[in-house]
Amino acid sequence: MASLYPHTFNNLIECYKKLPGIGEKNAERLAFASLELDDEIIEVFSDSIKNLKARTKHCQICDNLSEEDECEICSDKTRNHKIICVVENPKNLVLFEKTGAFNGVYHVLGGLISPLDGINPEDINLEKLFKRIEKEKVDEVILALRPSVEGETTALYIQKKLAKKNIIITKIAYGVPLGTDMEYIDAMTLELALSNRSVLEND
Amino acid sequence: MASLYPHTFNNLIECYKKLPGIGEKNAERLAFASLELDDEIIEVFSDSIKNLKARTKHCQICDNLSEEDECEICSDKTRNHKIICVVENPKNLVLFEKTGAFNGVYHVLGGLISPLDGINPEDINLEKLFKRIEKEKVDEVILALRPSVEGETTALYIQKKLAKKNIIITKIAYGVPLGTDMEYIDAMTLELALSNRSVLEND
Repeated sequence: MASLYPHTFNNLIECYKKLPGIGEKNAERLAFASLELDDEIIEVFSDSIKNLKARTKHCQICDNLSEEDECEICSDKTRNHKIICVVENPKNLVLFEKTGAFNGVYHVLGGLISPLDGINPEDINLEKLFKRIEKEKVDEVILALRPSVEGETTALYIQKKLAKKNIIITKIAYGVPLGTDMEYIDAMTLELALSNRSVLEND
Repeated sequence: MASLYPHTFNNLIECYKKLPGIGEKNAERLAFASLELDDEIIEVFSDSIKNLKARTKHCQICDNLSEEDECEICSDKTRNHKIICVVENPKNLVLFEKTGAFNGVYHVLGGLISPLDGINPEDINLEKLFKRIEKEKVDEVILALRPSVEGETTALYIQKKLAKKNIIITKIAYGVPLGTDMEYIDAMTLELALSNRSVLEND
């Protein structure tokens, strides 16, 4: 079927459809909305799309997204470079960074070990982590990985690799999240929350 | 809070957020996905965004979106120009066009009369419709407007304006849509479906 929309309009619909979770109807809606965008937004939007890939590199130290060779976090001297928080991807890094509760630095793995999917330790950004730990005399490595088989496998691998290195290795707490109805939490999380229970002290 | 993502990446997130229904998290997700787009898609995407507004005009006859002075439908001599289907916007035009069941032409109002919202008959594309009907000796005007107070008001206005013009004015059928569970249909639609019931003939 020939397109029922004008050429450029239709091109834009097709591009929006290449993005995850955006189907035909939504893409049409976004194209109509794009007709209403301010000219300055359009300028930035078009430019960002065009140059995103070329300008967005990976930090040479931690693999975080960065337009420079070193990301803002790694080049920040006020942060504690002796504590490395290991995350799966840049998105998770930002999630932790948004809490404002962490003043150390990060290491982005860019994936998790998953032999079933053919992802082995050498396929993710681990070698650089171990070299970095060796070189920088790191005090603590915090494993902040997704609670899943892959996350656990990766955590275990790192833990074994760093054994006898005189480094504190910690793992973030998994359990029931705040503000959720208990009924929406899966059984495995509840089991974990139970076994990780803490003693309440009387005053 | 300073951006936690690189400059261009963050610009793109902000642009995606200008689109309807796209919040912070979704915009981040789309920006990450944009990093993975093929170069040729990126080229078309960036170009479409940039030139969409300038290239997309309104058809001088029916107000449909078009890159030419006259849209493809209005300039198609094989279509029946004596039957005009009046729709609210170009999106609805495409919905009807997708059915493949209509060989006439359209007229896009670009809105519906809504005195409460300050939208009066002269604010939508009605004058051109009446002139067109006058000039083209139209046989039938199909009102294909949203079943709502605004749609009904607009339909009534057009109906009154065209009275005594010797034109057939029709309205699309409103009722229970196919394949829906009856329980999800509102009472007004059910009432309409009841009063518009048709007699089943025996063979």
